[in-house]
Amino acid sequence: MPEISNRGSVIPASPIRKLTPFADAAKARGIKVYHLNIGQPDLPTPRKALDALKTIDRTTLEYSPSQGIKSLREKLSSYYGKFGIDAKPDDIIVTTGGSEALLLTFMACLNPGDEIIMTEPGYANYLSFAVTAGVTVKTVTSRIENGFALPSVEDFEAAITDRTKAILICNPNNPTGYLYSAEELYRLRDIVKQHDLFLFSDEVYREFRYTDAPYLSALNLEGIEDNVIVIDSVSKRYSECGIRIGMIVSHNKQVMGAILKFCQARLSPPLLGQIVAEASIEGTEEYSKECFDEYIGRRNFFIKGLNEIPGVYSPMPNGAFYTIASLPVEDAEDFCRWCLTDFCYHDEDSGCTGETVMMAPAQGFYSTPGIGKNQVRMAYVLEINSLKRALLVLEKALEAYGSRG
Amino acid sequence: MPEISNRGSVIPASPIRKLTPFADAAKARGIKVYHLNIGQPDLPTPRKALDALKTIDRTTLEYSPSQGIKSLREKLSSYYGKFGIDAKPDDIIVTTGGSEALLLTFMACLNPGDEIIMTEPGYANYLSFAVTAGVTVKTVTSRIENGFALPSVEDFEAAITDRTKAILICNPNNPTGYLYSAEELYRLRDIVKQHDLFLFSDEVYREFRYTDAPYLSALNLEGIEDNVIVIDSVSKRYSECGIRIGMIVSHNKQVMGAILKFCQARLSPPLLGQIVAEASIEGTEEYSKECFDEYIGRRNFFIKGLNEIPGVYSPMPNGAFYTIASLPVEDAEDFCRWCLTDFCYHDEDSGCTGETVMMAPAQGFYSTPGIGKNQVRMAYVLEINSLKRALLVLEKALEAYGSRG
Repeated sequence: MPEISNRGSVIPASPIRKLTPFADAAKARGIKVYHLNIGQPDLPTPRKALDALKTIDRTTLEYSPSQGIKSLREKLSSYYGKFGIDAKPDDIIVTTGGSEALLLTFMACLNPGDEIIMTEPGYANYLSFAVTAGVTVKTVTSRIENGFALPSVEDFEAAITDRTKAILICNPNNPTGYLYSAEELYRLRDIVKQHDLFLFSDEVYREFRYTDAPYLSALNLEGIEDNVIVIDSVSKRYSECGIRIGMIVSHNKQVMGAILKFCQARLSPPLLGQIVAEASIEGTEEYSKECFDEYIGRRNFFIKGLNEIPGVYSPMPNGAFYTIASLPVEDAEDFCRWCLTDFCYHDEDSGCTGETVMMAPAQGFYSTPGIGKNQVRMAYVLEINSLKRALLVLEKALEAYGSRG
Repeated sequence: MPEISNRGSVIPASPIRKLTPFADAAKARGIKVYHLNIGQPDLPTPRKALDALKTIDRTTLEYSPSQGIKSLREKLSSYYGKFGIDAKPDDIIVTTGGSEALLLTFMACLNPGDEIIMTEPGYANYLSFAVTAGVTVKTVTSRIENGFALPSVEDFEAAITDRTKAILICNPNNPTGYLYSAEELYRLRDIVKQHDLFLFSDEVYREFRYTDAPYLSALNLEGIEDNVIVIDSVSKRYSECGIRIGMIVSHNKQVMGAILKFCQARLSPPLLGQIVAEASIEGTEEYSKECFDEYIGRRNFFIKGLNEIPGVYSPMPNGAFYTIASLPVEDAEDFCRWCLTDFCYHDEDSGCTGETVMMAPAQGFYSTPGIGKNQVRMAYVLEINSLKRALLVLEKALEAYGSRG
């Protein structure tokens, strides 16, 4: 049997799925598991988008253009206009989710052996795409004690070598929920400009910002217009992760031309997803407002509740729907597993055999060994009543874990 | 501005799209263009599949499993059973079209610098995926004078080096329409076994075979069960190229495990496409029969018509819906461009300003320079009446091209 590639073996296991077999076993024992581990929004997809599926009158579901359907790119262009972003339809390439947007951006901009700087804790799949593209990842660490703010200029400078070609940020951030300030973005702009790097900015959580500060996209950082490539997706903002529609936005024509060649090789992005995405963009302002109100309510409730549990600390995230919290345990992965294998909570409100929580141990979001060992990532994508139960169950679990034999 | 990657620049331009700007210009001049260049079937998607979209009762279009929805994999498993292929649902991974299936197979099995052997003329995008995976392509040539049969064992042996890790075939073949015989496949099996190589078999045109010979999938070649990875797709067989649903089928658990890690990184294949694909598989035997009858009718008509044009030669393809024909011209690319820029045919049946044909110059399907210069690839995915006009227009174009000043 021929040997397989080394690439598969160096792809890191996903920290949000690592404990899934234990969760499945707990469910098989009749235990209700609150999923705080995964960022699958529970909110409905806009009615208008679902209805668009019912009125498709095509008789052949044929290839769409490699760059994406023009009318979708036009609607996206006006969507970006509302955020003060000047993106013409030809500055946009539609992709199979933000995932493909990331991979193609890496492929088109970076050669094998090039280095890219990311912040840690970071979205674990960034590492997988880097492996796929043969790119080396250097990380700079953001820290819970600073609320996961952008690391210092000195930290970035220390990571830059002559192979460095790009910096990747996620803003608002998954997994920390941190929203970069204008001042931080300008600092980053200066680094990018000075070293002539690409700035890849993953902005899929744009809608989920819980401050009054004016919005600033990396596309609006003056002086680095040709360096910036924005990764975007409709998945989270319209609660339609399954349709796999993302996009790449850039003013750099050379980069967009190269990406389009990769896009032509894979023929086209999903047709049906594009139809749903297009129907999601316009006339859904009311929907977006309701989602926003729901998430800000959940955030306020959940973060306050977390900090009320003895020994637990979470910064107040200003974006996305995640937080990384530190727990009063030595090894959060052991605790998370124990919650699924050895623990369940039962009271008269449980209405079931028992309840537990599933969280993602945060170590999997760090590249530097040893950091974040007592941290977990949690997503507040459950309705408030479930979050309330999850907080209670977490508190009881920590008590029981602390006093176990 | 930072330099982009070399990868984009080495991705070959698609031979089927290269002349698109000229075709667009011809259409803008009111000329009707018969598209023989592209394999987009004109047949309708099964009614049952289209109806499945109208009855989706999900309120959230959420992520599906990374491996693909289980009920779809179960239906695929019984579909394969009908072709004598033993593929359990866990031997199947659902991908975003055959394109992703190819890329992930390359990524999981091959290291950068490894070599893969393909036959030429071949599907041009194979080269793009090879570039993406950093893999070196060696080609062995199949020749029009042999009807594009499998090259000899000696030709394969001559291409094998100590970096060779895989052979990729497409059967039935795009772009030649050639269907490998059992004897040819066993010959390939022996080479694969002797050199311990992977055999990647692209079988997306399985349904389109125009002989009575029993079907033989690479998955049924005895003695190389762990070497074979089949690439498949529902695009062509149900005329639903736009939904982007493909699949990888293999009994090699190690390979499938590695591919699944890449799949987890990109989260999930398109949900809506999976729903349509699932509805396409069962209860559409009548549909498949109608498609088959239509294509075999078109093939017989079109290939006969081609060979009746003075100086044109096309082998009789036994599969897919393509042929590569040689034309009585020195430079087929020049002729194809001229058809779009300088020629149009008009008679009382045209019903328009004039007509012309668009074909794909075959050189883009070869890696060896100079081969296939007088050849074109044509797809017979138009209804017979259009094919009839296209043949007439082609004949007139060849006459006019031959006697131009």
